[in-house]
Amino acid sequence: MPTSPGPFAGRTIADLARDLREGRTTSTALVRLALDAIAELDPLLNAFVTVDADGARAAARRADEELGGGLDRGPLHGVPVGVKDLIMVAGLPVSMGSRHFAGHAAVSDAACVARLRAAGAVIVGKTNTHEFAYGPTGDRSAAGPSRNPWDPARMPGGSSCGSAVAVAAGMVPLALGTDTGGSVRIPAALCGVAGFKPAYGAIPVDGVFPLAQTLDHVGVLAGHEQDCLVAYRSLVPGGARVDDRPSRGVAWLDPTGLFACDAQVARTTRQALEAGTGPLEELALSADEAAELRETYTAIQSSEAAAVHAARLAEAPELFDPEVLERLRVATEMPGWRYVRAVRARPRHAEVVGALFDRHDVVALPTVPITAPFLGQRATELDGESVAVRAALLAFTSPWNVLGFPALSVPAGTVRGLPVGLQLICRPGREHLLFEAAHGGPLPG
Amino acid sequence: MPTSPGPFAGRTIADLARDLREGRTTSTALVRLALDAIAELDPLLNAFVTVDADGARAAARRADEELGGGLDRGPLHGVPVGVKDLIMVAGLPVSMGSRHFAGHAAVSDAACVARLRAAGAVIVGKTNTHEFAYGPTGDRSAAGPSRNPWDPARMPGGSSCGSAVAVAAGMVPLALGTDTGGSVRIPAALCGVAGFKPAYGAIPVDGVFPLAQTLDHVGVLAGHEQDCLVAYRSLVPGGARVDDRPSRGVAWLDPTGLFACDAQVARTTRQALEAGTGPLEELALSADEAAELRETYTAIQSSEAAAVHAARLAEAPELFDPEVLERLRVATEMPGWRYVRAVRARPRHAEVVGALFDRHDVVALPTVPITAPFLGQRATELDGESVAVRAALLAFTSPWNVLGFPALSVPAGTVRGLPVGLQLICRPGREHLLFEAAHGGPLPG
Repeated sequence: MPTSPGPFAGRTIADLARDLREGRTTSTALVRLALDAIAELDPLLNAFVTVDADGARAAARRADEELGGGLDRGPLHGVPVGVKDLIMVAGLPVSMGSRHFAGHAAVSDAACVARLRAAGAVIVGKTNTHEFAYGPTGDRSAAGPSRNPWDPARMPGGSSCGSAVAVAAGMVPLALGTDTGGSVRIPAALCGVAGFKPAYGAIPVDGVFPLAQTLDHVGVLAGHEQDCLVAYRSLVPGGARVDDRPSRGVAWLDPTGLFACDAQVARTTRQALEAGTGPLEELALSADEAAELRETYTAIQSSEAAAVHAARLAEAPELFDPEVLERLRVATEMPGWRYVRAVRARPRHAEVVGALFDRHDVVALPTVPITAPFLGQRATELDGESVAVRAALLAFTSPWNVLGFPALSVPAGTVRGLPVGLQLICRPGREHLLFEAAHGGPLPG
Repeated sequence: MPTSPGPFAGRTIADLARDLREGRTTSTALVRLALDAIAELDPLLNAFVTVDADGARAAARRADEELGGGLDRGPLHGVPVGVKDLIMVAGLPVSMGSRHFAGHAAVSDAACVARLRAAGAVIVGKTNTHEFAYGPTGDRSAAGPSRNPWDPARMPGGSSCGSAVAVAAGMVPLALGTDTGGSVRIPAALCGVAGFKPAYGAIPVDGVFPLAQTLDHVGVLAGHEQDCLVAYRSLVPGGARVDDRPSRGVAWLDPTGLFACDAQVARTTRQALEAGTGPLEELALSADEAAELRETYTAIQSSEAAAVHAARLAEAPELFDPEVLERLRVATEMPGWRYVRAVRARPRHAEVVGALFDRHDVVALPTVPITAPFLGQRATELDGESVAVRAALLAFTSPWNVLGFPALSVPAGTVRGLPVGLQLICRPGREHLLFEAAHGGPLPG
């Protein structure tokens, strides 16, 4: 990574938790490291839109006092985290990446933030988001684009761009994001970190600005998938608990049934997985089902997003980023009957696509079919044809939002010097197997 | 009524049931009366699109044998009924009033038809419907318009036009209809019969061709509201059972809060009710709430109907009636975001409009603000202004489809020689009070 990694790169939450409890560090020291790294790295990378240095220091002092006094809130206790600027943190500005909310401050914590705090985490600031989370590129925000730490000329992916960049650059060990079509997993893949979108509804969206309410998920980004699991268990008490049904293993889903895929990305991600599992059975979706999944996603996402923004589109369109404005205007034209059919199609998708999980617990494919394009780039070449960057970025992730299935992206090496992500999907209730598969075998403990 | 009424005019199902059991008539004789009346009256009125004389005679023989052998299926046993041609009856043609289904026969009975048969009713034929039930005027069908028995130059209202006409003209004592925005109650009011739309989902819609699935209801039409109650109890075992909470009475809802209303219609319907109850407290909806209810109804009805017909609109638009085609084309342009907002508004409507029922069990207003216009008439004058006939017909009935509340229309006299309907609405679970209110006091027995 050309950009020098910050202090949390390569350190897991388990490491930090041990160091904290064994007296080798304090929350105050970790927060100082985070703030210093942000001060050093963020002028280039633009991961953070708000840094709450005073609030973080005060929270760190409390965390240290609690730990010193024997109150241990668990593995996130004293750990610095970033929170996507689409999620309310009481008293801090919340912009949704948009001029529409310039100067706006949140009155109360989102439910997921309240849970983070109850778990002892220390919020150091708000991370950049693609405007209103309405884009997977992460390069359109009132705060300017976030930049990919692997090559600051490239996009980080989005919409949780700042969270992925902050973690990838080692400014914080953990960040919250949201994922409506891939907004946690896409930037995780493009920035070489882990990103986990749990089952629909597993983490409540109260206090999170909506993009498309029946597709919106809260998720977590961290350097290592085990940190995502730790965070998930802290956010969802009882989440991803190990059940005692035996695992039926992992299958590979041919990504080209969904969208064109860079052959090196497909090979690299598959090899990364098969290095642990051995050769995998390959599954496929029909072209019809893939096309209908795309239509379902598009109809729902467009209609629900346009419903969220109808008043702003009518009253102050000039405050939107021009690209976001144009896309929202297209979204307002999505006919209601296509939305109706999309909503009705969801149970059928759950049945047809869900059948992929009849003989395996986990299905794997690349997270994204390409490596990070340049900032502002909107077309790329795949298999000798020009494809739209947005469509490519979303192609492998959005189906799992339609189904509401848990999906994890883990770093799986590099292609031409840029990171690629392996995506692992399961039915709700089998989350622990995602992490086992990513880990290359049964989890320890 | 200028058209001489058929044999069932003025005879209640209770009368028929007593006559059947006391040996004064047989189901075979009742079916013969129905078939003869159809043969005599229907060339003018066009209530029926299919008459199943052989099937009805055979069913009547079985009904008579059963009654003779001591098997009594209840009050509908042996009673001739008509079924709207949007509802499947096994083996009979089902056209939905459209050339799209010319020559199409139903393979199995709709759930409501199966229940009718289990209750011993004898299906004599299929009644005309506005094409695909997509219109409250009842004058656009591949089978031609049905005509109002009170003046054959006038529309019967729709979409359950044939069912209302068949009952009003005394061809059958009972008919099934469907009601998405008023399609049972509007023709009941315009033809001077009773029509009952139960709570959403109370009578299953399986085997009923959809118009707008979250608004569609199955309902019943009969000469007298007590017959609607008898039929409802037969279709929904346990339906409208008397609960023991004391009744909190009836309130009048100012209809002009919803739409302009012919002053004589308002006065006549209110007086008909107050003759039994004495002066009523008057409630009102705000203009904003009324406008939002209309928007919610329109967005949902348009989007869901266009979803039902999208393939036909693309592949064979020429088979639609031109007016229905034009309206469906408009419906396909309803934006998805308005549908999304409408779906979200429904719980709020249930709360705001539901508050009308906080201090009263039954709310009353006219069923329709006008008397029957002429066939094909699309504008009329109300309060000195021109209004659209379709909008006027639906204005007082469609809110109760948005809420899914039970609603009963009962004959309430005439205005300028044409019948008007009084509409009574309640929360689900208080249905018996609608019938008490219509009856002018507590129900006997």
